[in-house]
Amino acid sequence: MPGDPPSGTPLWEAVGRARMFDLAQPMRTGMPQSANHPPFRMTPERRHGDLVRPDGGSAANEIIVTGGHVGTHVDALAHVSQDGLLHGGRPAAGLASHQGFAELGIDAFAPYAGRCVLLDVAAVHGVATLPPGYEITAGDLERAAGRLEIREGDAVLVGTGWSRLWDDREAFTGRRGGAPGPGAAAGRWLAGRRPRVVGGETIAFEHIAPGRGHATLPVHRILLVEAGVNIVETMRLAEVLDSGAREFLLVLNPLPIVGATGAPVRPLAFAD
Amino acid sequence: MPGDPPSGTPLWEAVGRARMFDLAQPMRTGMPQSANHPPFRMTPERRHGDLVRPDGGSAANEIIVTGGHVGTHVDALAHVSQDGLLHGGRPAAGLASHQGFAELGIDAFAPYAGRCVLLDVAAVHGVATLPPGYEITAGDLERAAGRLEIREGDAVLVGTGWSRLWDDREAFTGRRGGAPGPGAAAGRWLAGRRPRVVGGETIAFEHIAPGRGHATLPVHRILLVEAGVNIVETMRLAEVLDSGAREFLLVLNPLPIVGATGAPVRPLAFAD
Amino acid sequence: MPGDPPSGTPLWEAVGRARMFDLAQPMRTGMPQSANHPPFRMTPERRHGDLVRPDGGSAANEIIVTGGHVGTHVDALAHVSQDGLLHGGRPAAGLASHQGFAELGIDAFAPYAGRCVLLDVAAVHGVATLPPGYEITAGDLERAAGRLEIREGDAVLVGTGWSRLWDDREAFTGRRGGAPGPGAAAGRWLAGRRPRVVGGETIAFEHIAPGRGHATLPVHRILLVEAGVNIVETMRLAEVLDSGAREFLLVLNPLPIVGATGAPVRPLAFAD
Amino acid sequence: MPGDPPSGTPLWEAVGRARMFDLAQPMRTGMPQSANHPPFRMTPERRHGDLVRPDGGSAANEIIVTGGHVGTHVDALAHVSQDGLLHGGRPAAGLASHQGFAELGIDAFAPYAGRCVLLDVAAVHGVATLPPGYEITAGDLERAAGRLEIREGDAVLVGTGWSRLWDDREAFTGRRGGAPGPGAAAGRWLAGRRPRVVGGETIAFEHIAPGRGHATLPVHRILLVEAGVNIVETMRLAEVLDSGAREFLLVLNPLPIVGATGAPVRPLAFAD
Repeated sequence: MPGDPPSGTPLWEAVGRARMFDLAQPMRTGMPQSANHPPFRMTPERRHGDLVRPDGGSAANEIIVTGGHVGTHVDALAHVSQDGLLHGGRPAAGLASHQGFAELGIDAFAPYAGRCVLLDVAAVHGVATLPPGYEITAGDLERAAGRLEIREGDAVLVGTGWSRLWDDREAFTGRRGGAPGPGAAAGRWLAGRRPRVVGGETIAFEHIAPGRGHATLPVHRILLVEAGVNIVETMRLAEVLDSGAREFLLVLNPLPIVGATGAPVRPLAFAD
Repeated sequence: MPGDPPSGTPLWEAVGRARMFDLAQPMRTGMPQSANHPPFRMTPERRHGDLVRPDGGSAANEIIVTGGHVGTHVDALAHVSQDGLLHGGRPAAGLASHQGFAELGIDAFAPYAGRCVLLDVAAVHGVATLPPGYEITAGDLERAAGRLEIREGDAVLVGTGWSRLWDDREAFTGRRGGAPGPGAAAGRWLAGRRPRVVGGETIAFEHIAPGRGHATLPVHRILLVEAGVNIVETMRLAEVLDSGAREFLLVLNPLPIVGATGAPVRPLAFAD
Repeated sequence: MPGDPPSGTPLWEAVGRARMFDLAQPMRTGMPQSANHPPFRMTPERRHGDLVRPDGGSAANEIIVTGGHVGTHVDALAHVSQDGLLHGGRPAAGLASHQGFAELGIDAFAPYAGRCVLLDVAAVHGVATLPPGYEITAGDLERAAGRLEIREGDAVLVGTGWSRLWDDREAFTGRRGGAPGPGAAAGRWLAGRRPRVVGGETIAFEHIAPGRGHATLPVHRILLVEAGVNIVETMRLAEVLDSGAREFLLVLNPLPIVGATGAPVRPLAFAD
Repeated sequence: MPGDPPSGTPLWEAVGRARMFDLAQPMRTGMPQSANHPPFRMTPERRHGDLVRPDGGSAANEIIVTGGHVGTHVDALAHVSQDGLLHGGRPAAGLASHQGFAELGIDAFAPYAGRCVLLDVAAVHGVATLPPGYEITAGDLERAAGRLEIREGDAVLVGTGWSRLWDDREAFTGRRGGAPGPGAAAGRWLAGRRPRVVGGETIAFEHIAPGRGHATLPVHRILLVEAGVNIVETMRLAEVLDSGAREFLLVLNPLPIVGATGAPVRPLAFAD
């Protein structure tokens, strides 16, 4: 009934007392992104004064062009196939049309609000930012986890400090020097913990060797195709890494774009 | 230190026990939207098999074109001006460029995670969905609130049941019959409660009289320009209305599109 | 050698003496088009003053979103398939990728500059504009041609007067009343003349019966798939129809968009 | 009357006997262009088989995103302002809205079909392609013209051979080494001939010094603002340069995009 307050500490009070971290990079024309995807562009359309209503009111708006894998975003399981098959052995061709994927699109990812553990691999190596081209190993993840338990269904984020390079487009995209990320062994280690979703700070959640580009994407195959685990990319983890929080509430709610292989998201972390 | 668990019931457990409601409408080409804004379009680009990597892997992607006020979205304060001025008396012209608004854009809206009250005006009238063209009055809002307290800084959502019409494009857009929404008096009532943000189910949070269209937008002026209160539009409130929850945690995190006058969002409600 | 003038009347003088007709409709946001294709939108981006160079200079620009079959445009042979096959029995699936069509795209259409005959079917019926839903017959085309010879490789345009309705969006799109155009028999009559290209004033070069929409497109099948004849649509023929010219030079140079199934064009006619 | 043939050699026969040159670069995703303008992207949307009509027919289409100054294109007079003024002293601000420019947009450029002279500056220097960063002088233009008369209202194209570099994106865009083009003196020389339009092969019809980028655009100011002469950029002149033709018919018909500051075009040359 309207007006009946809940008993105990209300959820909003508990959340209100937590520290909130905004884990999304700001989206603007020219921001770093993968060259494989349509470039983000926000263009103002109407400006105030273009079209003034009789009462002196005016509304401004914009047009936005983007890819589904641009800025901070979640990869749908439909994003990657291996030998023509998506997760669960579904043939990719039969599920795709001009309307996108009938199954395994980003709309099949239920919003996540739950436990998240942050594995700070940069700290394991005593640096704020891992060097370009560094391959994260399973041992790195073990050491970063320490006594922190990873439970089935958790979100697991891997800190490389790379989000600190956001304002340096050349460095962030790693076109020349590569980018740090998990190798296949680390990918299997993650899949073995049976998380709901994993995420990181780079454009692609992979080890990108210098000068090689995205020749193959083994971790995408392991997580998306084999294990059915979604991936969050281009997260801004710098502040939460610096805060020392390693276990917190993560809210991850990508735009529900029906049939898309990925969608932008503004993830929020809430730490006690 | 990594590994030190927090004391008490962790936030993620409390949130995990709550009922989660997804308050966003699904986004797809052809969905109902305002004719004043660029139409949403999601077009698949690469399909699996178009570009196969040497190891048999393949990635699919898409291009997305949209407006900032399409689907479930938050209006930035920069969206509306009155006599050339934005909220706080800022001249609109001086803040606008090809990069959008230097102030009052949607990036100036900090993500909201806090208390939310839902005023079910449809229930006040004993209906599931208010008729097209119905003007919500201040009295309607008073009756819908009942004993439910509205506190400064809350989110306030106004239920009309209109989100039930989503699949009927002609009806939802209200081009002929109009759409239910607050009149100027109800807008002032809302502003007087000093909320952080208000929201509703229709394309425009306004009373749209039959056949008149958006000739003037008094509630936008009152909330955005005069009171500095953001507006959420095209929300899917049907499930939470039906659940009986009237007070809950709302997470509202629009995409951080720098300088935009609005941005899509996937709001989540968590009710005990 | 530079400086040697050609003998005889130079081409530019001959063309300069001709009456020039612009056969393209103006392109603007909101113009009539098929609902099956991405809507045209031209949005100004930079305005003068947004970004001023040190010397006081400033440049304005825009972003344009469109489909390939929007405004006055040419259909590539790859546009339509029958039972999975394109013109010449080529399997459509094997030629398509994220880069468009490897064969039969609009880039495979060499610019046309040659003889054009205009068949004024509206005049045959003594009207300026044929009624919506009128099916043009082979007999209509015979009568419109009269003594005018149609030669192999010519361009053949069919006048309905429909371009006069351009400013009436509802009427032009024919959503309710249909649109005049050739039936299958008239399509075969045209194909039998072995033209290089045919064209008309409506959105689709087809007879569209009232209320039926584009359920089937027999003339597209006959021309594009069976005969290998390109189609120009949404032409503005009103002025040339009114001029009385029925035989003239046509220049038809669609944008060379590699792999596209169609492209916008601004056709020009030059009549003595 | 239909059927009455014109006397003398018909225009289409004269044009049909000429050599036709396609002066447009092919448009495809990833092609070289200015970083100041929205990148061109052609994305296939429906593929054959996605939506099959009852009779076995199917239509494929695409979505195209582009700027108005991308690929081979014509600059409208509204493109550039000096000290807030467009050509003829018109204040730029008063002519611009969300619908583009009310005057001096590309729709104000009447299609051109007339005499064209080609000044081969590369040949003056005995090379096929001018070096990056070379500033074309008035003397270069004089020598390239030789005995070739330039008449008021002509089109004048300036050959640098740069279009030969189209397939080398880094070189063509000249981001490091600059690009050859007219300096201010050459721009004034051209304006003094009172042409209807001038054109060239590079992205910007300017001398771009190495490493300087488009800091200022004096030739745009001289031609567009002061002289009211439109500019064609990114033309493919290689074949016509190699042919030896220096005087020919040019057909220049940019897309009639109402209010735009520029538009793509597929120019054709016809040489005896």
